[in-house]
Amino acid sequence: MLNNLLGLKETSADDITAILDDAEKFKKEVLQKDIKKSDALKGRSIITLFFENSTRTRVSFELASKYLGAAAANISAGGSSITKGESLIDTIKTLEAMAADVIIIRHSASGAPHLVAKHTESKIVNAGDGMNEHPTQALLDMMTIREKKGGIKGLKVAIVGDVKHSRVARSNIYGLSKLGAEVAVAGPSTLMPKGIEGLGVKAYYDVEKAIEGADVVMGLRIQLERQKKGLFPSVREYHKCFGVNKQRLRLAKPDAILMHPGPVNRGVELSADIVDGEQSVINEQVTNGVCVRMAALNMLAAGKRA
Amino acid sequence: MLNNLLGLKETSADDITAILDDAEKFKKEVLQKDIKKSDALKGRSIITLFFENSTRTRVSFELASKYLGAAAANISAGGSSITKGESLIDTIKTLEAMAADVIIIRHSASGAPHLVAKHTESKIVNAGDGMNEHPTQALLDMMTIREKKGGIKGLKVAIVGDVKHSRVARSNIYGLSKLGAEVAVAGPSTLMPKGIEGLGVKAYYDVEKAIEGADVVMGLRIQLERQKKGLFPSVREYHKCFGVNKQRLRLAKPDAILMHPGPVNRGVELSADIVDGEQSVINEQVTNGVCVRMAALNMLAAGKRA
Amino acid sequence: MLNNLLGLKETSADDITAILDDAEKFKKEVLQKDIKKSDALKGRSIITLFFENSTRTRVSFELASKYLGAAAANISAGGSSITKGESLIDTIKTLEAMAADVIIIRHSASGAPHLVAKHTESKIVNAGDGMNEHPTQALLDMMTIREKKGGIKGLKVAIVGDVKHSRVARSNIYGLSKLGAEVAVAGPSTLMPKGIEGLGVKAYYDVEKAIEGADVVMGLRIQLERQKKGLFPSVREYHKCFGVNKQRLRLAKPDAILMHPGPVNRGVELSADIVDGEQSVINEQVTNGVCVRMAALNMLAAGKRA
Repeated sequence: MLNNLLGLKETSADDITAILDDAEKFKKEVLQKDIKKSDALKGRSIITLFFENSTRTRVSFELASKYLGAAAANISAGGSSITKGESLIDTIKTLEAMAADVIIIRHSASGAPHLVAKHTESKIVNAGDGMNEHPTQALLDMMTIREKKGGIKGLKVAIVGDVKHSRVARSNIYGLSKLGAEVAVAGPSTLMPKGIEGLGVKAYYDVEKAIEGADVVMGLRIQLERQKKGLFPSVREYHKCFGVNKQRLRLAKPDAILMHPGPVNRGVELSADIVDGEQSVINEQVTNGVCVRMAALNMLAAGKRA
Repeated sequence: MLNNLLGLKETSADDITAILDDAEKFKKEVLQKDIKKSDALKGRSIITLFFENSTRTRVSFELASKYLGAAAANISAGGSSITKGESLIDTIKTLEAMAADVIIIRHSASGAPHLVAKHTESKIVNAGDGMNEHPTQALLDMMTIREKKGGIKGLKVAIVGDVKHSRVARSNIYGLSKLGAEVAVAGPSTLMPKGIEGLGVKAYYDVEKAIEGADVVMGLRIQLERQKKGLFPSVREYHKCFGVNKQRLRLAKPDAILMHPGPVNRGVELSADIVDGEQSVINEQVTNGVCVRMAALNMLAAGKRA
Repeated sequence: MLNNLLGLKETSADDITAILDDAEKFKKEVLQKDIKKSDALKGRSIITLFFENSTRTRVSFELASKYLGAAAANISAGGSSITKGESLIDTIKTLEAMAADVIIIRHSASGAPHLVAKHTESKIVNAGDGMNEHPTQALLDMMTIREKKGGIKGLKVAIVGDVKHSRVARSNIYGLSKLGAEVAVAGPSTLMPKGIEGLGVKAYYDVEKAIEGADVVMGLRIQLERQKKGLFPSVREYHKCFGVNKQRLRLAKPDAILMHPGPVNRGVELSADIVDGEQSVINEQVTNGVCVRMAALNMLAAGKRA
């Protein structure tokens, strides 16, 4: 039984599979029902504590909490007084003292969720920590792949873009590898982390080689701000060299699916036509995001009950 | 059955009447009850997506959602990451993918709700789009008029102020005309839209002529910022020429009611004494705002169930 | 029966005791249960209207509302349009018109909650007004003292720090005195209000004399901004002269408890070791904050039902 959801590095293949199975169940039994309401988390309190803005992820967790009947409260810690003159651990202890069952934390410092988890009995969910992990994003990606491909084992997944700064990539690499997929990454040399092959992936600087024969092609979001730091020359140049377009997508298997964590910079990471094309499963990813979050929250908060 | 609530221009008299009837019912059966709680929207998710600030309108929709048992989430899109590098349509598709039943949108661009409604199966409610419409405000005005006057047909309604920039005025003109009222508008020539008479109203530059014999006198909120642009000389001058005061209100019928969408600039659009006077129904308008929003949300979200 | 909770100055000893009794009951029957959910406030609407930031207090009230089944909405009035061109009383009338049962207000002006309470039938809870009162904080302090000491009567409570600017101190002085405790205050002469002894407390400039023989030692939060105004020389100097540390705490009774409203500036008001020490009840205070807020909201909103 999971105590926290800090990253897929520390989550076993069995726990990942259990979350994906539950997420499928919640999809059918809650999200796709006419009345999207369960009492699974009735009487539980779930707090989002976001030190970085992310409306999409926050709303996804908030709806997941509410669909399961939990009491949900949001703290946008950017401008919040809760963080004034108070250590992160003291903040978490305060929320624990308010009987928070689950605290969902997003923080710019890698490892922040792992640190606080050691100091609280509230369950911690990592909603993105620095350049480390974003486990629920990888879980929703894996759920989508499993749904579309019937399984994950033996698939070839190509992840393309700013691998270096991407917690989405890192969580997917851990999770997909554990479930038996073969992961290839590709991107500009300035945006590829050194030693990435140590994680068991194949690294390419040629995006076409990475995509060749893939079952899944996943674009990563480019932070346009990084351009100013000289990490890539121009958006146009980026798209030309590393963007996924129709022609490059054809190098993948004919039934390959196209993924992106969103929001897409159309014409940069992906050409606009394939974003809305038949192979795109980008909106399904969003839907499955609510489902894996329901599953993760349920697993953690139900775990407390025992 | 309504699919969206985009504006009263595109809403039939029958649908308007149906919403007003339901709003009355919800007022009696929910809002005025000791326990303000219904299960009408249990298992529905309702998201406010406001690109312009409006705490009053947002809270009114939020309470309406919660009184009916829906899961409600708020997105203040002004400073939100949801809008970064993402088109409005992509944002809406994302919320739809999270199984949002109703998305309530306020946007500075006229027509934004109409545009997004074409691209989503979530129901869209316009909570104010640029200088176009603000249909739930007009519905609450009409509900208040009907309550106080027993009906709308044949009434004379005088709308006074910055007609040009007022989505409240425009929605009222469409709605009141459809239900058979006669609408007169009055304001400074700089704040009167050209061709307004094409909408079937009488336009006056003399506020007293507009008010004469009216059953309803409605002041419009002046954006004090417009003064800087030279659209009116001074607040004092404005009040002198176009403000509604006791003397001018006496020109209306003796039992005329005084309305304002709020918040009132006391001493500008309306003199302070009449804001709190016997003819004022301004607080009833606020109450009825929650009721028409319950009715509209119920009509749209129940429509999905069928 | 209480109509509002404006301050402990105007709350009787019996009402204080009734809230503390209810808070204990809610702690056992709601907060410490596996399923933290009651229907006590089902169908009630509770709005926080905060003109000053305070995430801790806001979340505590929000969770208290939700644990009791109320519909809760938050208004952060700092940047809110609700306050534009609208008097505070008009804002409150608007929320009352939306059928708000309870409005929880925090405002920088002393007396603001008392003013609005005269103009509305919604129940008003003061969540901190200027340098006047913060009654729910004092109630949670008193609940914690009662829990740890078995009662309040006859205890010696030492309050140390910026007494002058502290609404927490003022509410505690009123409440503790009413229940029969003896209160001593201590702090720099620049941060001690003139005539404080008129409230029935003993004032010391020597922190050690105040602490001597105390059953309860309560540190007050220092606003570090005040340093710039020359009210105390440096954080280090402050801690040396007025900070509570192990040595000073030993002057209190051996079983004395250490309190602080949080967040603590470690090493300033309290030395870091005693914050986490055995005598510290700081986290219990936070827990009890949710409980007294449940009790107060329940008392006010249930009062309406009658």
